[in-house]
Order: sequence, then C-alpha cells, then structure tokens
Amino acid sequence: MLLARLLAQQNQEHITSLEIERQTGWSQSLIRRDISLLEIRCGSSNGYKIRELSEAIKSALIAQDAPDSQRKCCIVGLGNLGAAFLESAMPADSPFVIKAGFDFSVNRVEILKASFPLHPTSMLEEVISTENIEFAILTVCENMAQSTAERLSSCGIKGIANYTNTVLSLPESVSVENVSPLSALTNLLSDFLVSARLKR
Amino acid sequence: MLLARLLAQQNQEHITSLEIERQTGWSQSLIRRDISLLEIRCGSSNGYKIRELSEAIKSALIAQDAPDSQRKCCIVGLGNLGAAFLESAMPADSPFVIKAGFDFSVNRVEILKASFPLHPTSMLEEVISTENIEFAILTVCENMAQSTAERLSSCGIKGIANYTNTVLSLPESVSVENVSPLSALTNLLSDFLVSARLKR
Repeated sequence: MLLARLLAQQNQEHITSLEIERQTGWSQSLIRRDISLLEIRCGSSNGYKIRELSEAIKSALIAQDAPDSQRKCCIVGLGNLGAAFLESAMPADSPFVIKAGFDFSVNRVEILKASFPLHPTSMLEEVISTENIEFAILTVCENMAQSTAERLSSCGIKGIANYTNTVLSLPESVSVENVSPLSALTNLLSDFLVSARLKR
Repeated sequence: MLLARLLAQQNQEHITSLEIERQTGWSQSLIRRDISLLEIRCGSSNGYKIRELSEAIKSALIAQDAPDSQRKCCIVGLGNLGAAFLESAMPADSPFVIKAGFDFSVNRVEILKASFPLHPTSMLEEVISTENIEFAILTVCENMAQSTAERLSSCGIKGIANYTNTVLSLPESVSVENVSPLSALTNLLSDFLVSARLKR
C-alpha cells in the first residue's frame, strides 16, 4: 500500500528496487519478489517503469479486493452526457457495475433505455441505500452539481467521478475525481507549463 | 513551479510555510509573500490547505501563461459522447477554445451541428497543423483509440484527455489524462482501498 503512495510521489520515469529500499527500508530482494508476484513486465535495467508499476499495483489491489463481486455505482444526471454513458460506460468484465441511473425529469427517465433501472432523482437516497451503491458518476447540469453531490455524500457514497466543471466542496470522507474536459485539459496544460519551465 | 510539484507529493491535508522551507530551502517569509500574491484564502493556523493551494497555483500558472489568448483544442470522435461534448465541453471564459471536431463518418460530420467546424478524420493532420491545435479530447470507439492517439501524437499534440477505456501507449512528449468513467472509478476505488488499509 505504501508503495502505491510512494510511486505517486516520484517525478522520474523509472525507479529501481535500490531506490525503493532507500526510501522505505524494505530489502531489495523482498521488493523484487513482491513486484514479481504482480506478474507484469515493467522491469528493465533502468528499474521499473513507474507509470506501469502504479497501474499494476492498482489492478492487483482491486483484483484482491473482491474477486467475485463488483462495486456498485450509479449515473446521476441523464442529459446528453449521462445518456451517452448509459450504453458505454462500463465494460462487463470491469470491477464496477452500474445499478441505477437518475434524472430530475420523470419524462427523461421514462424515455431513455438502459440495462439497469432509471429513477427520478427524488428516489436517490432510497435506491442508493437499498442497492448498496458506493460510487457515483456525476453528469448533472452545473447549477445542480454542488447540491446533488451533497446529497450523494449524505447517503454515504465513497467517491464521485465529477463530469461537471463545478469544483465540489464536500466532506473529506468523499473522494472526487474531476474528469470534465475542462478539468482534464487544465491538468494537461499545467503539467505542460510546469515541465516547460523546469526545462529552462 | 517546484512548489506545484512539491504539493503534488504531499500526503497530508495541510502544509505550513516552515515545512515548505525545510523541503525547498526557500525562506518562510518569501514563501508567504509569494503565496499572498496568489490572492487566495487557503491559509489558517494549521498552514495552507494543500488541495486549494495546488488549484490556486495551477490557475495562476494558466492565467500568467497567455492572459489574452486561449489554447486551442479539438474533439476527436463524435459518437454520443463526443456529440454531448460539442455543446457543453468548454465554458467561454475558460483558458481553452475548441476549434474543430472530427469523426470517421462523413455523414455524422454533416448531420451534427457545432459552433466550430466539423471535419472527417481524414483531415485530422491538416486541420490540427493549420489551426495550431495543441490539445485533444479523445472520444473515439475503443478499437480506434490507440491508432487515433498515435496520429494525434505525430501531429505534435501536447496532451490528450482520454475518454476511452484504452490504455494508450505513446511517446513521453504527449501527456495523457485518463478520464473515462472506468478510469475515474478505478482511481477512486484504489485510493479508497489504500486509505482503508493504511487506517488498519
């Protein structure tokens, strides 16, 4: 677990087991054995590729987590974006399964079709609790984003994939991934500007 | 710039100017003055809130970057998801402006409407070069993702917001943000599993 955190803190592309040893105090041989159990090929004479190693650890964590069950999630907001996710959001073999969709408009809920039930947003708390839904994909319009996220947080949702441009203000118990095009491009641009300046 | 990197490496919620001094060798008073220039209120007796300070630095970087111009981007793939982004992807006052959309299907390009030109994917290289487009929002279907990303990389695109589930393999010169629902939920779940284990 600490390795996952450690990797997230590295700036270089590669890391050797010696460097991991220096930073953690674990022995090199133990580190190499543990990494070999991940059954990935991201090692080289330069060390491990950090990005690939991180991904492998994430996958291993999730695979260990509950090999026979899937984490339940829901889509909140079924405008064009939410509706696009209805069909394509989650591959069948993923660690997640979508159990419900919600929209403010009862009419919208009746028109749209999905492989899981769609409900009016008024039933949000009830359905999330009954279905033990843990994660939410937030695709409501901007002016509903904060209030809807607060409702999700109050029903014990653990994490929100935020497709709105709103910067959500929520208790620490809820994690948020900001994944709107604006957020994604802002991250790409600031990374680019930081590395351009460091190169000077 | 280094401060942006440093903050990305912190695990705690707050950081004090004294801790920044210890890690960077810059003087506390200089750090406090520089942060005060950001005109944000994220200080408290506990130090600065790391998340808010990071966001403020990103915004400041981007604002400094080119106050009067916007970075040009494009949407590649106009299925339901790409089409949903045509209308709502970028607020007018954002640091980005969408200059083009692309789809493999000429028919699709003719049917859809947007405030910027839509082109068949065969014109990708030409339009990106003529328009000086720097960033791409990738919303093609899975089996086109890697090859399309390679084409974007070859025309000098700096960053890709990847809305597909495909793990793209690209040269280091192109940054990728993985922002599909599957990627976003995987990040949320692995963060949750890491922090649950660290708490034990």
